[in-house]
Amino acid sequence: MLASAEIGHRIAREDYQREEPALREGLLNAQYDLLERKRGPILVLISGIEGGGRGEIANQLTSWMDPRHVRVNAFGPPTPEELAHPPAYRYWRALPPKGKIGVFMNAWYRDPLGGEHPGDIDPSTITTHIRRIRAFERMLADEGVTLLKFWVHLSRDALKKRVRELTRDPATRWRVTPEDRRTVRRYSASHALWEHMLRESSTGAAPWNVVEGSDARYRNLTIGKILLEAMQHAAAHDGPARPAADAVLPTPSVIDNVKLIRDLDLTQALAPERYPALLAKWQARLAAATRDKRFRKRALVAVFEGADAAGKGSALRRVTGALDARQYLLVPTGAPNDDERAHPYLWRFWRYIPARGGITLFDRSWYGRVLVERIEGFCSVADWTRAYEEINHFEEQLADAGVIVVKFWLQISKAEQLARFKAREQTSFKRFKITQEDWRNRKKWAEYERAVADMVDRTSTEIAPWTLVEADDKRHARIKVLRTLVRRVEAALEN
Amino acid sequence: MLASAEIGHRIAREDYQREEPALREGLLNAQYDLLERKRGPILVLISGIEGGGRGEIANQLTSWMDPRHVRVNAFGPPTPEELAHPPAYRYWRALPPKGKIGVFMNAWYRDPLGGEHPGDIDPSTITTHIRRIRAFERMLADEGVTLLKFWVHLSRDALKKRVRELTRDPATRWRVTPEDRRTVRRYSASHALWEHMLRESSTGAAPWNVVEGSDARYRNLTIGKILLEAMQHAAAHDGPARPAADAVLPTPSVIDNVKLIRDLDLTQALAPERYPALLAKWQARLAAATRDKRFRKRALVAVFEGADAAGKGSALRRVTGALDARQYLLVPTGAPNDDERAHPYLWRFWRYIPARGGITLFDRSWYGRVLVERIEGFCSVADWTRAYEEINHFEEQLADAGVIVVKFWLQISKAEQLARFKAREQTSFKRFKITQEDWRNRKKWAEYERAVADMVDRTSTEIAPWTLVEADDKRHARIKVLRTLVRRVEAALEN
Repeated sequence: MLASAEIGHRIAREDYQREEPALREGLLNAQYDLLERKRGPILVLISGIEGGGRGEIANQLTSWMDPRHVRVNAFGPPTPEELAHPPAYRYWRALPPKGKIGVFMNAWYRDPLGGEHPGDIDPSTITTHIRRIRAFERMLADEGVTLLKFWVHLSRDALKKRVRELTRDPATRWRVTPEDRRTVRRYSASHALWEHMLRESSTGAAPWNVVEGSDARYRNLTIGKILLEAMQHAAAHDGPARPAADAVLPTPSVIDNVKLIRDLDLTQALAPERYPALLAKWQARLAAATRDKRFRKRALVAVFEGADAAGKGSALRRVTGALDARQYLLVPTGAPNDDERAHPYLWRFWRYIPARGGITLFDRSWYGRVLVERIEGFCSVADWTRAYEEINHFEEQLADAGVIVVKFWLQISKAEQLARFKAREQTSFKRFKITQEDWRNRKKWAEYERAVADMVDRTSTEIAPWTLVEADDKRHARIKVLRTLVRRVEAALEN
Repeated sequence: MLASAEIGHRIAREDYQREEPALREGLLNAQYDLLERKRGPILVLISGIEGGGRGEIANQLTSWMDPRHVRVNAFGPPTPEELAHPPAYRYWRALPPKGKIGVFMNAWYRDPLGGEHPGDIDPSTITTHIRRIRAFERMLADEGVTLLKFWVHLSRDALKKRVRELTRDPATRWRVTPEDRRTVRRYSASHALWEHMLRESSTGAAPWNVVEGSDARYRNLTIGKILLEAMQHAAAHDGPARPAADAVLPTPSVIDNVKLIRDLDLTQALAPERYPALLAKWQARLAAATRDKRFRKRALVAVFEGADAAGKGSALRRVTGALDARQYLLVPTGAPNDDERAHPYLWRFWRYIPARGGITLFDRSWYGRVLVERIEGFCSVADWTRAYEEINHFEEQLADAGVIVVKFWLQISKAEQLARFKAREQTSFKRFKITQEDWRNRKKWAEYERAVADMVDRTSTEIAPWTLVEADDKRHARIKVLRTLVRRVEAALEN
C-alpha cells in the first residue's frame, strides 16, 4: 500500500500559489456550513512516519480554517490520569461534537505500532489492537462521524535525506530527534509492520489515505483537498458517514496514485544477444527450485494480469517451459459460467488452489473483480470496493498455508499496444487474438490505469506483493517474470 | 448468551404433531421456490455441545425436505488431501450453489474450539480464528448466501442426565462416546470459551441462534421454523442476504427466550425480621471490599436497569449507604441533552467511567438504546441491532482495564407494578414518581419483556454477566443486589 507514496510526488510553487487561495476559501465555507447545519463531525486522524511532517499538517489545517471550531489533540504517552482509565477513555473525551472538526495525532494507532517502544510488540497484541480499532471506527462511522485517516509517508531515501539536511545546518539540527534517527535505522523492519497495519485497518467505513510527505506543498494541498471533499459531503448529507450503498472510491481523486504506473520506464530493453543465455539460466533455476525437496512442503500460485497484448501468454510459456507438466496447472480466466455465477466470486479460484508441492498459474484471476468488473459495471460499486479486503484475506490464507503468492502486472505503452494490435491483424495465425473487445478496452485506457493503480495500492502486501513488469520489450518482461519467480521461490525455500 | 438455553424448553407431543405437518409442507414448498428462482443459497451451520443432538437435527432436516437438494457435510478431522491445502479449502469446495441448501456440521467453528483437542487452544489463536471467521461470513452474506448458525446447547444437568440415561440402558450404552464424558468433565471450563466465541462471532450479518437441545421436539421444531422463515425470505429477495437497512431482529420470533424472564420466581421473599441483620452484614462487607487496598487497582461500574417502579432507587440507596461519598458517583440517565446528542451514544457514559479505585453507579444506562430507544423507535432498527456488539466491546474494554462490571435487571410482576403505581398516587411525596409515561410504558409490557430477553441473551457475557433480580419483594431484591456486588468485588480482589 505504500509503494505509490515512495515515488517523489511534487507540486510546483506556482501551482500551489494558484490553488491554495481557493482551497482555503472552500475550507472556511465548508466549515461554516458544517457548523450551521450541525452536520458531521469530522475527525481527521494523522499518523505516519516520524519526520513526515505530521505536526506541520496540523498547523497548516488550523491556519486555513477558523481555529475556534477545529481542535488539535496530540496524544502522546498517557498521563497518570489517563493511565488510571481504560485506554479508549482519552479518545472518547476528545471526540468533536457535530458541526466541529477534530484533528487527532496518531491516537489509537500508537498502540499497534508499539507506543513508546515501536517494534517491541508481539503479533497477537497487534491483532487484538486492530480488532478493537476496526470495531471502534465502524461504530464512529455508523454514528455519523466522518473519519479521515491520513498516513504520511516517506521513502527510506527521502527520510535519510531529510535527516541529513536538518543535521547539516546548525540552525535546524535541534529539530532532529532521537526518534527520527531510530526511524531511519529501523526503516526496513518497520515497513512490513506499517504495511500490515494499514492493510488490516483499511476498511470500507474508514479507509486509509496514504500521502507522500517529502514535498510539503504536495502533502498539504492533497490533505486539504481530501478534507474539503469530505466536509462538503458531510455538510450535504445527514446520517451515517458512509452507508453501504454509497461506498466511496478506494482512493480519493486528488491522490495521484496513477503516477506509479505512468512513471514506469517502459524503454527498458534487453539486448537480443543476451536473451538466450539469461532465459536458460533462469529457467534452469526455476526448474531446480520447484523440484527441490523442500518445495514439497510449499506450493506456488502465480497471477498474470496485464493490458491486452502485453505479452502474458508468451511470458507464461517461458514459465511453463521450465516446469514439469505433472506438477502445474494453467488456469485461463474468462467470463464466469453459470455454475461459477451461482457461487461467491472467489469460489472458482479456490478450486484450483494447489495442494502442497503443486503450482497453479492464473492467466487473469480474481483481480478481474477490481479491473474489468469494476470498469464494465458487471458488479456493484459496493461489490468491488469490498473485494480488496476479501482478496487480501484470501491471499493471507494461502500464505499462511505455505503457498508462495506471486503477482505480475504487465504494463505496455499505448503506442506499443497499437503496434501489436496492427501486427496481429496482419499475421493470420494471430488474427484470432484481436477482437472488437480489445479495441473497446483500449478506449478505456485511463480507467484501467486508475483501476490498476488502486489495485496495486490496496492489494500489494508484504505477503503477496505485486511486481510491475515493463513489457514494451518482451525479452525484458519474460526475464523479469522468471527472475522474480525464482527469487520468491528460492527465498521461501530458505525459510 | 447461553442462559436462555439452559432453562428446559419443551414442546408437548400433541403440539408437535399438530405443527410438524405444516412445517414439513412449508419447507418443501420453500425448497422448490428457492430452486426455481435460483435464490439463496442457504447454508445451515450446526454446531454446539457434544450430545446436544446435532446429528439428529441434520437427519430430521433432510427427512423433512427433498434430499436431492440438501447436502449434509460433516467436517471431522481433515483428510490428508485437505491437510495439503489451506484450511478453508474444504469449506469452499462444499459451498452450495444458488437454489440449494447445504448443512455444515461444525465446519469452521471446530478451529476456535480447538478441533480434536478442545481446551488446548491459546487465546491469541482463538482471536485469529474469529477474525477470519467474521471476514469470511461477512463475505458470504455480501455474496448473497443466507447463513444460519445454530448453537445446540444443553445445561450441565441436562447433559449429565442424558449421559446417565444412555449409559444405564445396555442398548444405548455404545452411543456414549469418550467425547461425551469429556464434555461433562470439562463443562464449566468450556462454558466461558463457548460464551466468548459466540459473542465474538455473532454479527449482524451472521448472528448465532442458540437452541436448547434437551427436548428433541422443541429443538427440531425451532430449527425447522427458523430455517423455513429464512428460506421464504431468500426465495422472495435477491442480492445480499442481509443488507444493512434490512437488519433482522436479534432473535427469531420462534426462539422463546422470553421464558427466561417469565420463569423467574417472583414470589421469592425475605422474612422482614431477617432483613436488618442481612442488610448490615452485606453493607459491611461491601464497605470493606471497596476500602480494601487491592481495590485501588480496580474500579467498579454497576448498572441498574428494571421496569418502572421495580425499586431501582431504593436498591441504589442501600448500595450507596455502604460507600464512601468521595469514592462513588451516581449517574441518573434520562433523555440525552443536545451536547450528548451531538456525540456517539456511548460518549455520555464514557465520561463517567471511574478511574482506578473509583465507583460509578448508573441508574439506567447505555442499555437504553436496546430498551426504550428500540421500543419507542428513537433510533433505527440498524442502530439498536448494532448496539449489542458495540456494548459488548465497550464492556470488554472496561473489564480489560480492571473495571468490575456488574449489571442488574430488576423484574417485577405486572400486578405488583400496578399496586405500586396506585400506592404512589396515594402518597403525596411519591406522586412525582408516577407519570403518564409510566402508564404508557406499562401498556408495552410484552414488548419490554422481549427487548429485555434479547438484551440479556446478547449482552450477558462471561466478563459482564447480567444478574436478574426478582423484585416483587423489595427486601429480597436489595439483599440480592448487595450480595451480588460483594461477591463480584471480592472475587475480583482475589485475582
